[in-house]
Amino acid sequence: MKASYVRTLTRHIHVYQSKNLSKEFLNVVQCHDLLQSLGFIKQTQSGLVHWLPLGLRTLNKISNVIKKHIEQNGMAQEVSLSLLSPKLLWESTGRWKNGELFKLKDSKGSDFCLAPTCEEEITTLIGSYISSHKDLPLTVYQIGRKYRDEKRPRGGLLRGREFLMKDAYSFDKSKQEAMETFGRMNETYDLIFKDLRVPFVSAWADSGDIGGDMSKEYHFMHETGEDTVLKCSSCGHVSNVEKCSSYPEETNQHNGDVNVRYALNIERDTLICLYYPHNRTLNWNLVLDALDHDVDSTLVGESNEKVLDLFHAGKNEDDMMFSSVVRIMDCRLNSRSNYPDFPLKQYLKNNFSQLDDVTLVDAEENELCGACEEGKLSGARSIEVGHTFYLGQKYSKPLKAKFTAKDNTEQFCEMGCYGIGVSRLVGAIAQVTRDEMGLRWPRVIAPYEISVCSAKQDNLCEQVEGLLQAWKSETWVNRDDKSNLGRKIATSHSLGIPICVIVGKREWPHVEFEVRAPFMGDSWRGALQEKGESWDWTCESAGSEHVQRHKVHKDHLKDVVGVILTDM
Amino acid sequence: MKASYVRTLTRHIHVYQSKNLSKEFLNVVQCHDLLQSLGFIKQTQSGLVHWLPLGLRTLNKISNVIKKHIEQNGMAQEVSLSLLSPKLLWESTGRWKNGELFKLKDSKGSDFCLAPTCEEEITTLIGSYISSHKDLPLTVYQIGRKYRDEKRPRGGLLRGREFLMKDAYSFDKSKQEAMETFGRMNETYDLIFKDLRVPFVSAWADSGDIGGDMSKEYHFMHETGEDTVLKCSSCGHVSNVEKCSSYPEETNQHNGDVNVRYALNIERDTLICLYYPHNRTLNWNLVLDALDHDVDSTLVGESNEKVLDLFHAGKNEDDMMFSSVVRIMDCRLNSRSNYPDFPLKQYLKNNFSQLDDVTLVDAEENELCGACEEGKLSGARSIEVGHTFYLGQKYSKPLKAKFTAKDNTEQFCEMGCYGIGVSRLVGAIAQVTRDEMGLRWPRVIAPYEISVCSAKQDNLCEQVEGLLQAWKSETWVNRDDKSNLGRKIATSHSLGIPICVIVGKREWPHVEFEVRAPFMGDSWRGALQEKGESWDWTCESAGSEHVQRHKVHKDHLKDVVGVILTDM
Repeated sequence: MKASYVRTLTRHIHVYQSKNLSKEFLNVVQCHDLLQSLGFIKQTQSGLVHWLPLGLRTLNKISNVIKKHIEQNGMAQEVSLSLLSPKLLWESTGRWKNGELFKLKDSKGSDFCLAPTCEEEITTLIGSYISSHKDLPLTVYQIGRKYRDEKRPRGGLLRGREFLMKDAYSFDKSKQEAMETFGRMNETYDLIFKDLRVPFVSAWADSGDIGGDMSKEYHFMHETGEDTVLKCSSCGHVSNVEKCSSYPEETNQHNGDVNVRYALNIERDTLICLYYPHNRTLNWNLVLDALDHDVDSTLVGESNEKVLDLFHAGKNEDDMMFSSVVRIMDCRLNSRSNYPDFPLKQYLKNNFSQLDDVTLVDAEENELCGACEEGKLSGARSIEVGHTFYLGQKYSKPLKAKFTAKDNTEQFCEMGCYGIGVSRLVGAIAQVTRDEMGLRWPRVIAPYEISVCSAKQDNLCEQVEGLLQAWKSETWVNRDDKSNLGRKIATSHSLGIPICVIVGKREWPHVEFEVRAPFMGDSWRGALQEKGESWDWTCESAGSEHVQRHKVHKDHLKDVVGVILTDM
Repeated sequence: MKASYVRTLTRHIHVYQSKNLSKEFLNVVQCHDLLQSLGFIKQTQSGLVHWLPLGLRTLNKISNVIKKHIEQNGMAQEVSLSLLSPKLLWESTGRWKNGELFKLKDSKGSDFCLAPTCEEEITTLIGSYISSHKDLPLTVYQIGRKYRDEKRPRGGLLRGREFLMKDAYSFDKSKQEAMETFGRMNETYDLIFKDLRVPFVSAWADSGDIGGDMSKEYHFMHETGEDTVLKCSSCGHVSNVEKCSSYPEETNQHNGDVNVRYALNIERDTLICLYYPHNRTLNWNLVLDALDHDVDSTLVGESNEKVLDLFHAGKNEDDMMFSSVVRIMDCRLNSRSNYPDFPLKQYLKNNFSQLDDVTLVDAEENELCGACEEGKLSGARSIEVGHTFYLGQKYSKPLKAKFTAKDNTEQFCEMGCYGIGVSRLVGAIAQVTRDEMGLRWPRVIAPYEISVCSAKQDNLCEQVEGLLQAWKSETWVNRDDKSNLGRKIATSHSLGIPICVIVGKREWPHVEFEVRAPFMGDSWRGALQEKGESWDWTCESAGSEHVQRHKVHKDHLKDVVGVILTDM
């Protein structure tokens, strides 16, 4: 009874699968629909999906890769927070008014939201436990569902209303230690994304809604992505447009109108005049860099008039005579550009300074990279899959996560938070790696590593299963009575299973198999060149650039499969 | 840097822990508070908890035991369903009006609930995929959060508003096959609960709200439980009161008033008169058994008058003369009991029959067991931890989960559903196994299997850690600077870690360790009697019935620990 049950178990994957495996279909269908028709997921409502057995295996494998690195690297302890988070907590950080919160009341009338991220909860939790500086540093993480009532959910798994997320939160004693933790978490992210074996870029980025002034994004480059990053053709530096500095190929070429934007230094005794071409966008991150961050950033949203008023406030005419003025000229301007009037009527030349040759505006394609000043920038569409933030005391202050420092003073924790969209990664990797034959998972996250296809279930098929015993839990035997051998092979390839073993009497005692996954390394070639002859192994193309066909004596099937899988 | 981070990682468990480990505290504190003060969980709101690192390890271990058996036994494929379930689906089965549903609206005004169980979703999902009888049988399961807006959440993890549940759903072609699946799932449950190593009973039970007429409950016996089961002192048969048959020690002893309840057979041509002592409760399950289920159960809720009206309906006086009447007498009654008037004025003696010596009423303690008729029944409080149901077509009909049978007819699936309260198990096992020293986990679900306690972190401590390398991920080294050795040992015992290794110079190269967990087997004694001398092993009591102290030469620490752990 047991054996027969295991059979029906694997057969059942077919229940969920599409009948259409034609290249026409596989080529044109949207990735989300492809995942649905191949039985990975099933959409129930806009932005909501059920995870089916194949999809869940891939999802769990991604979670395990993340978990392994986060724990092995000693970064974090696992927790699992309640998803029902009370209104009061979200009001204390000003996030209750977020329009994308799913809100609900319990039977007593208390208000809750379904947590989209857990800064409020984790800061309260950790704040209630730590007391001394000896309790820090402390980092926790969880992998769990999150909710966001997207107005326009789209792209299937890329922007869902219910999604699986890895979120980690760090608590440190000082800004310096928080930056070290931030750096170490970014190293861990590099390890995670390298292990997923899909090329990625990490970009310094604006931190958006969550806050803090250091953040890094992780992207897969892909033409269907919703984000844009700029990449240098020479040094390879990648960044988000908010953090990208660039130079024109030739400076001082702008002849048209010039915009000016006023700012003050932190002491508010120096007027800063920022000049830039009227057809470009001022980039405050570049302004801050140009002035070594000596800018009163609370005035960034204010009008020029307001800034001038504040500069004049409380000063008489003599004071004004001795006030400093700094003019910052974007390097694209020249002296013939059409400048606006200077705002001060009188000033001493000694108190006046000017900074030229800086870049103040959002980078554009084809300009020179600000990092190396050699390569040209090109923009490319990308899919964001991870984001790390240094948060400072943004949450620890309102939620009172304090500790007693060595000098006996009470201090607020320095925090960071770190997200990876786990379910989003399934959609993103499917999108980036798919081809005309269907999906094409890297081995580490393929739902199964090996499939066994046979015209019929006979003794020979069982023998081959026995030879692959070492991959038992990673082997899927296609027992679909309704399919012929060709269709079984096409199914294996469309599901993105790396190796498809084809059972047949004709070649016996040799076994043929096809390799579907992209090779990530080349060490298999050397190993097989050395051992291949004694293992009775040969390799031929299967007539498609996407698939290689191999043949090996049955006694060495497991050796060759083992060698090949290590490179996938 | 890596090594130092791993240290702080394990040290941090302490952040979450209570300062109070006194026996007075550990003895009297409520189990939920004990789990909180030891850092397993943290309650955020009534019925809602955060899972902290220790608690999450135990929770995950329970999940893994369940997963292993459900998959190894070939029972089910894993899925993971969306928790946001639309109103429409719940209206189609009449469950939207359930007052314990958490309900919410999305930004477009659509109504959803947070799923408390997933019959509606899974039946719709599977119904959309299956078409032929070849697609069946099919069983799926998931382990995930569920929500129930309990009016009075209490008992902490035992009755939460957010809880982790294993829910499985089976789809079969026929009632017979569904019953086989139901039986196989119950066998799997036995394996799961045996593996958890806490004594349990399984009881036939009424199926309550979910429906269907076969169900089985799994209970831990404990005086704090909210349920009651009846157990026979002789044959050990256990059942819920709804399913329990019993006999009085001496029959025909009831002298007082007698109640009567009327019913009809399925054809509605026989009047059934059920007589039983007025001070007892009629049990319809026993009535059904007594009459081989030939009872029109749609009339169970109707008054005696209504039943008589239906019996008379459409019959003239002659018909009535030939109508059958069956009197069923509970075996507790005798002829001197005070019977109500007989409802029919005229009847033929030939059409009249009587059944004596049956039991029709809810069992009571101290009566004889209906299964063996020898032992006495005793009632005991229990905690329900699992429940299996045969559902029939209760959900497949309204949600149209159909298939084409071999004979080409369309048929509805026969379903079953099977729950285990995973987070509830944490609370229940803690409650059942705790003692005056704190928690006392069976090894398979202890947060760590071994702790290492040392007065200070020195070279000796590192050596011992090295000796236990084989249990690396299961070893917790207590690095709490603020604790002395005695407190570290008490902490290990209170956390319920099975083995506490005590590092000290005094006995070196011997190492002492204390065994905390209850022994589940006795094979360790034989193994150590045989090998003990050559391993330089001795065992002494630690002066407490709850803890044994062992001493062994360091070179054999891992051997002895290995032997002992197999019995825990």
